[in-house]
Amino acid sequence: MSASFVPVPSGSDFPLENLPYAVFSTKTNPTHRICVAIGEHVLDLKAVAHLYPRSLQAALQAENLNALMGLSYEAWDIARTQTQKLLTKGSELAHNVDLVSHAVLSQEDISLHLPAQIGDYTDFYSSIHHATNVGIMFRGADNALMPNWRQLPVGYHGRASSVVVSGTPIRRPLGQTLPDGADKPVFGACKLLDFELEMAFFIGGPGNKLGEPISVDEAWKNVFGFTLMNDWSARDIQKWEYLPLGPFTAKNLGTTISPWVVTTAALKPFLLDNFPQDPQVLPYLQQSAPFNFDINLEVSLKPSNDNATIISKSNFKHLYWTPLQQIAHHTVTGCNLRPGDLMASGTISGETPDSYGSLLELCWKGTKTVELQGGKTRKFLHDYDEVIIRGYCEREGLRIGFGECAGQVLPARPIPGQ
Amino acid sequence: MSASFVPVPSGSDFPLENLPYAVFSTKTNPTHRICVAIGEHVLDLKAVAHLYPRSLQAALQAENLNALMGLSYEAWDIARTQTQKLLTKGSELAHNVDLVSHAVLSQEDISLHLPAQIGDYTDFYSSIHHATNVGIMFRGADNALMPNWRQLPVGYHGRASSVVVSGTPIRRPLGQTLPDGADKPVFGACKLLDFELEMAFFIGGPGNKLGEPISVDEAWKNVFGFTLMNDWSARDIQKWEYLPLGPFTAKNLGTTISPWVVTTAALKPFLLDNFPQDPQVLPYLQQSAPFNFDINLEVSLKPSNDNATIISKSNFKHLYWTPLQQIAHHTVTGCNLRPGDLMASGTISGETPDSYGSLLELCWKGTKTVELQGGKTRKFLHDYDEVIIRGYCEREGLRIGFGECAGQVLPARPIPGQ
Ligand SMILES: [Ca+2]
Ligand SMILES: [Ca+2]
Ligand SMILES: [Mg+2]
Ligand SMILES: [Mg+2]
Ligand code: NI
Repeated sequence: MSASFVPVPSGSDFPLENLPYAVFSTKTNPTHRICVAIGEHVLDLKAVAHLYPRSLQAALQAENLNALMGLSYEAWDIARTQTQKLLTKGSELAHNVDLVSHAVLSQEDISLHLPAQIGDYTDFYSSIHHATNVGIMFRGADNALMPNWRQLPVGYHGRASSVVVSGTPIRRPLGQTLPDGADKPVFGACKLLDFELEMAFFIGGPGNKLGEPISVDEAWKNVFGFTLMNDWSARDIQKWEYLPLGPFTAKNLGTTISPWVVTTAALKPFLLDNFPQDPQVLPYLQQSAPFNFDINLEVSLKPSNDNATIISKSNFKHLYWTPLQQIAHHTVTGCNLRPGDLMASGTISGETPDSYGSLLELCWKGTKTVELQGGKTRKFLHDYDEVIIRGYCEREGLRIGFGECAGQVLPARPIPGQ
Repeated sequence: MSASFVPVPSGSDFPLENLPYAVFSTKTNPTHRICVAIGEHVLDLKAVAHLYPRSLQAALQAENLNALMGLSYEAWDIARTQTQKLLTKGSELAHNVDLVSHAVLSQEDISLHLPAQIGDYTDFYSSIHHATNVGIMFRGADNALMPNWRQLPVGYHGRASSVVVSGTPIRRPLGQTLPDGADKPVFGACKLLDFELEMAFFIGGPGNKLGEPISVDEAWKNVFGFTLMNDWSARDIQKWEYLPLGPFTAKNLGTTISPWVVTTAALKPFLLDNFPQDPQVLPYLQQSAPFNFDINLEVSLKPSNDNATIISKSNFKHLYWTPLQQIAHHTVTGCNLRPGDLMASGTISGETPDSYGSLLELCWKGTKTVELQGGKTRKFLHDYDEVIIRGYCEREGLRIGFGECAGQVLPARPIPGQ
């Protein structure tokens, strides 16, 4: 591919082959609008919408990505091809200095927002290493995986309202917990606040009608693109509340996603074979084509006024269940998906302890410490700790990056009446 | 209160004291708009919005109730008072024959839609009789209630996209189950399809910001109004999938609500003391004022081409946890609520077997049959069965009704490849 007229520094997450979408605004124009990233800049797609086919223009001028997500995969390809053409050296746009001066903005001068209105958010539990680790910690090695785990992609409905964009501070929650050995619960600030390293994808395409499942072979038409996710989790609250209906207030305190939506098209060079599944799954989950990706993931922890330490290096490829199997299972009973719905992977842990995707696993339920640069240690998160997740694909000089998904822990509010 | 100029037949659910909100359209005007029910008619609030204070007019002209829900409780009271005034005999509106002919429509001539765009839907589990029954069936009488059940209102996040309005058919789901005694799951049509008799309320008021809990004493400002709900449940699918993260595909096949939103104001004459709670709950859940209601509930089952039989009579008052406690708990970790969010009670069972709110309980896990008129029996739902939930408050000649929440079971789709 020929280079862009917008400079792309070496090692950038955002070359011409990536072009992730985001929603942004500026100080002088607070209207939310769509852009793609290119190097250290963005291209304002609202400002250049007239250079795209008429059928795409309304979606490119919208305040979020839902309308674009709601088009077909063919339309997404047309948009991507045209954006690459416009950003290439010597293009029609490159020669229009006035338009470039309006439509190409430095990432330093913009604010990024949630990329879509999320109708529903689902969190899966698709890393076999993570599920096994949690199982060993809470039920012992003999019953680590529940009997259903290898038969279906376990998941639950999450809270859409509390999904926030990278950079939003997360307040340490108050809540109810049962201290070890106590017979009565207590109220107070969460003591075991954790992150979960996840990725998530946005549903696109027209979606399906209630009562009409999406088959595993058709599901790829509904995967618009991917973000990084931190599914903040209050472990002590979760432990007390989750029986029998699953996580509730322990997970709805905030869920952070990265602002950039990397399209499935941009990830194609990094396709991998699917994770081998044993036993063979039921026919409605049997997937012929690969839909697994080699995406490096890392988690940094940055204490207040201190340097960040990378505390985990994982990879999307460790997921046992693919996004297509997740869609097929999610809709098998007839559940309708809508453009802008968000599907998260669950915590992505690799096999080795340096690749675990949560502090729960890294500190092995509090029995070990995680070492940080400069001698500090952690079991769970402290106030003012910042958690930064990064992700990128890299091979033969091509780097497709996800930017970052960051959030800082604020201290709990005072308890009313105390 | 003086009577309405719109006739209200004796025994109607919708006297001048009720005025539940709904969203409707007509054949000649497919635009969704807001109305209130009065007798067998509705008043089109878009058509009479100009007769309300200016601050309410935009909300009354909207395509759903979210904007009205998003105003304050003071605004809701102003709207209600003005609607009652307009519908009273001899009012300004009553004398405007031309406007009446446009704005007052027969319920036979309108289609009803979902009353709001539901951002998030939460399902609680707040009936102690229901939770106890389920516990006895699955864990035995000694461990019927989980240790957390009396300490917090157990709930989980449901699927907002598949909430549908009364009258929408529900297709029997396909899905994965583990037959009794089998060591491998099978794929096929749900064999144990059930209803759940519930009520739900819509969140109103400005909502809260992420990280800022709503106190139990302030929570009433956020309860806009109530509907009936049928939380369709695939028991065999649920049993296999729900460990460890809770119900997922067994519940996202469709959730039916009644079209009419009965306001908290209309329910005030039927306030009851809260259900006694033992042990005393933690301070953040301690509620000083009553917020329980005497609402009669009944479930009818109507086989195809046959008469309906009332198979359960229950009451909202059986709920152990109040809506205000549900809100306080839901937000205690900082979860933000938005106008239009839906909070369901969980299955409402009374103490006696004739008041159980699900077939699971009525047939006691398949060990008994439910008798219908004409000699038919049921354990779980058959194809083409219609389930109709009704609800009403009644005392001293005042009846505040909820209309009905109905849905018919359609046969499962054929299994692909068979
Ligand atoms: Ca998670
Ligand atoms: Ca339920
Ligand atoms: Mg979360
Ligand atoms: Mg449901
Ligand atoms: Ni939602």
